[in-house]
Amino acid sequence: MKKVFKQILVSGMVLSMVPAFSATAADAPSTTAAASAAAAPTAKSKNVIVLIGDGMGPAQVSAARDYARHFLNKNHLELDSYYVGQATTYADRGEDGGVMVSGEVTDSASAGTAFATGHKTYNAGISVSNEDVSKPFASVIEASEKVGKATGLVTTARITHATPAVYASHVRNRDNESAIASQYLNDQSVDVLFGGGKQFFVSKQEKGKRADKTIIPDFEAKGYKVVYDKAGLQSLEAKDGKALGLFGNSHVDYVLDRSESVPSLADMSQKAIDILSQNPNGFTMMIEGGRIDHAGHANDLPALVQEALDFDAAVKVAMDFAKKDGNTSVVVTADHETGGLSLSRDGVYEINVDAWNKEKQSSEVFAVKLKAAKSIEEIKQLVFENTGFNDLSDDEASYIMKGDGTSYAQEGAYNAVVAKRLMVGFTGHGHSAVDVGVWAYGPIADLVKGQIDNTDIARAISKVANVDLDGTTAELQAQYVYPKFKVTREGATLFPARMLSTSLGINVAWDEAAKSVVLSKGDNKVAVNVETAETTWNGAASSFNASMDNGSLWLSLDAFQQLTGKTLAWDALSERISLK
Amino acid sequence: MKKVFKQILVSGMVLSMVPAFSATAADAPSTTAAASAAAAPTAKSKNVIVLIGDGMGPAQVSAARDYARHFLNKNHLELDSYYVGQATTYADRGEDGGVMVSGEVTDSASAGTAFATGHKTYNAGISVSNEDVSKPFASVIEASEKVGKATGLVTTARITHATPAVYASHVRNRDNESAIASQYLNDQSVDVLFGGGKQFFVSKQEKGKRADKTIIPDFEAKGYKVVYDKAGLQSLEAKDGKALGLFGNSHVDYVLDRSESVPSLADMSQKAIDILSQNPNGFTMMIEGGRIDHAGHANDLPALVQEALDFDAAVKVAMDFAKKDGNTSVVVTADHETGGLSLSRDGVYEINVDAWNKEKQSSEVFAVKLKAAKSIEEIKQLVFENTGFNDLSDDEASYIMKGDGTSYAQEGAYNAVVAKRLMVGFTGHGHSAVDVGVWAYGPIADLVKGQIDNTDIARAISKVANVDLDGTTAELQAQYVYPKFKVTREGATLFPARMLSTSLGINVAWDEAAKSVVLSKGDNKVAVNVETAETTWNGAASSFNASMDNGSLWLSLDAFQQLTGKTLAWDALSERISLK
Repeated sequence: MKKVFKQILVSGMVLSMVPAFSATAADAPSTTAAASAAAAPTAKSKNVIVLIGDGMGPAQVSAARDYARHFLNKNHLELDSYYVGQATTYADRGEDGGVMVSGEVTDSASAGTAFATGHKTYNAGISVSNEDVSKPFASVIEASEKVGKATGLVTTARITHATPAVYASHVRNRDNESAIASQYLNDQSVDVLFGGGKQFFVSKQEKGKRADKTIIPDFEAKGYKVVYDKAGLQSLEAKDGKALGLFGNSHVDYVLDRSESVPSLADMSQKAIDILSQNPNGFTMMIEGGRIDHAGHANDLPALVQEALDFDAAVKVAMDFAKKDGNTSVVVTADHETGGLSLSRDGVYEINVDAWNKEKQSSEVFAVKLKAAKSIEEIKQLVFENTGFNDLSDDEASYIMKGDGTSYAQEGAYNAVVAKRLMVGFTGHGHSAVDVGVWAYGPIADLVKGQIDNTDIARAISKVANVDLDGTTAELQAQYVYPKFKVTREGATLFPARMLSTSLGINVAWDEAAKSVVLSKGDNKVAVNVETAETTWNGAASSFNASMDNGSLWLSLDAFQQLTGKTLAWDALSERISLK
Repeated sequence: MKKVFKQILVSGMVLSMVPAFSATAADAPSTTAAASAAAAPTAKSKNVIVLIGDGMGPAQVSAARDYARHFLNKNHLELDSYYVGQATTYADRGEDGGVMVSGEVTDSASAGTAFATGHKTYNAGISVSNEDVSKPFASVIEASEKVGKATGLVTTARITHATPAVYASHVRNRDNESAIASQYLNDQSVDVLFGGGKQFFVSKQEKGKRADKTIIPDFEAKGYKVVYDKAGLQSLEAKDGKALGLFGNSHVDYVLDRSESVPSLADMSQKAIDILSQNPNGFTMMIEGGRIDHAGHANDLPALVQEALDFDAAVKVAMDFAKKDGNTSVVVTADHETGGLSLSRDGVYEINVDAWNKEKQSSEVFAVKLKAAKSIEEIKQLVFENTGFNDLSDDEASYIMKGDGTSYAQEGAYNAVVAKRLMVGFTGHGHSAVDVGVWAYGPIADLVKGQIDNTDIARAISKVANVDLDGTTAELQAQYVYPKFKVTREGATLFPARMLSTSLGINVAWDEAAKSVVLSKGDNKVAVNVETAETTWNGAASSFNASMDNGSLWLSLDAFQQLTGKTLAWDALSERISLK
């Protein structure tokens, strides 16, 4: 505070440094974050903590507060004191030159790319641009690593899931989680990685999901302490520096299903902060409440509320640290809403909060029992045991047995039947496009207040953390491109010739007489006859692999390598070309 | 601005006057509105404009912005520049000593009472407390009248509807709109009243809804110019001082259905400001986008979006005035969300904004045609004509013909069928409990930012307008009480004896020997035998009318009058007792 105040006086810009009051001036600009950001130099923070409530739309926040008011004797969430604005979340529909035409309603990958890197992209894209040959966008974590800050990613989802992934990896498709884990190992040096997702660090032979090998020993070789449960987490010491915590094979268990050996998000966050705060250059970290979203997808309100409260407790850990530290900015937001949750339904002006604490197991775990049930009587008994509701009609029980017609099947039907009794509504199992809340503490608050877009968050972080997002992006883009590709029946990997040529500065022309596409750079030429797919190198027959597909030419990498004279290496796991 | 800055320096409280930065201090309090309000004296505004988007929850705002982005080449709503926080909206469930047990999900009356007076109440209560004998709560408009400010109410709903009503009337039940109109005439001196609702100013004989008489001449006698259409509105002059504009028999037509003769909310707002701003003491006014809610109830998204944009245009009128004037605070909020709207549905990550501009008539008007349709082919043709959708299945057309099983019938079914194609969801025809946005400009912004409750808005207005809400409430409470009552078969009006006695300072005792309830004040006593309902006055038989109902005594007003020695008058229209 003293530091900030000094800046105010020294700069001689007292008036413009008081944005909350500038709105009283007759001719003041509108009180947007952009306007106030432009008006004054931003105070810096040594440390920045970003917290993401995945799927935590406005109704999810209200629901958690309603629960706290009814059951926890708290009129407010920890979050509430820090509310500063809301953010638009739309995905890049591909209308501005991009090629992957997403829906307007974002997924976690696209939203995450936006608030981690400052760039919109298509749904499923992990910090890469929306193009046939995508370019990587650097995240605030990567830019922080460049200046020697400590970095961390903490989540209750798989650590390789979209939201953490956008901060420290680049892939065309979020499902490529083995590549994401490998990039954490090889490309980045994120100091603390806590979450679920052990399966993407372990080979298939060892019951994981990796086709190549178990990479946990490689993390250990790089100095990571690796832990798997709450006791392991607690055993970590602040001086350990690097730690990988894998607290679930897939996602970390829901709060409702957690055993004593599974840490809470607050536990993980506290330990991560203890470690990262040892770095004299400061740290940048992201903490995700990853499963608010999953419960929203399933339409499981009681599980959702507990995940939101678990997240809120992690917010408290971050805020407590920030207040004590005095040199930390904290920003909290969501990537999108999930489920189309409404607090009320069917025209009744009431919500049955009193019943929101009854569910014993999350619907995800409970669904296993429902699937095995052999009669509607058994369904009724199971539902009674898990929720206390003993008034299911035969129709409802039979609906649960049959499933709701989506991939959520019995689980979806069970949640639909229960939601009626909880007096809440859901309109689907996907995301929705309502704006999401933004909460903040410290100098960053002034940059993210009011009505913003999710991309503004990345830019705000780079400002307060004083890191170079654009420079880091430029470095990354000089290293890799992420092209579309196809693998032929013979096992050759081919790339879209026109787009990759453009990306690599290769000239593309059409030779009508020879019915050939001609790629050239300097004096060198590759020609491909589009009827025979035969290729030549400076007029001589060559062994480049080519094929036509719907009028587009696809070509093997050696052609591009010879043309550019660069060592272009195909990374089949990360599905990218190294340009080094 | 200069004035504020001066205050900062003079007070020597620079640090605490910079709430946006105080959050950077290690030991700073949380950045709640309450905390920052406590830290410093508030700058005043001569004028205050409150704008209420009825039923405008977060998804409604996002939807309007999506429409503006797709069709109006505007990335932002007028509102967006002024976003400062969000508000909880819950009704008084009656758990804190109140007697009307509402649901937690508020209606417009309860929410309006909260942000107009600063007090929670039950659903349907118009600025009265939640008690058997309710007390009135003064609104910021009433408190402004006390200090000689001009006042105004502007809405696209009936001017006697809940949201305007809470600012200038007091009734136990919002449906008592004739009483509300009469209170506007007799109790208040709101200078400008613009909206719909002519029917509550006109007698039944003249095709209105009033049992007594047409009261428009009475308004004229008090100096009001009365107008009925856009031309009439335009003919009003700033110096006219007092004006009543009734632009619809019920609500003002939806934007989609408006003829040229119907003014927009922006038209009404501009004229109201022109008139009110002539008062040298300043003005306080409320502008409501009243039909965002109605379209939400019907689940008619295209109509809803147009109403939200109509409201947004009125926000611009208010903000433009405030910026030019330099001495005006503006605060914008909603009372609640309506419809459980979600932007997406059924798990698809898209919204079909491209089709949101196709509806020709609002579903309310269009429903008349649907009700008259004789075949599913006719339904299909009608829907095609109104929306351009020609792909209705037989099942869908037959569902529309049959109705959706609610009071919305064919209209509800039509909207459900159309909403699928617009790719939005609704979970009911009622309100929901999600927090609503708060937008502000001027000194008030600092008092309503962050996470607040809707009651904070009334308190913030009374602060910046420098009016005495509590004092005005005390005056009102000395004038009237609003009791429960019943009318006997013989036409006597009876009141709950215990509750009214408590309210009037009358002692209540039980005489076991005489099987009588004894009410006493000073030396005087009324006794009522609970078995015979016979009454006595100081021991002598009396003609007070009494009856027992479920163990509770109900008693006629003359008994209370004799006991208190006051002139207690029953106002049968407003259903209140005058204590004067």
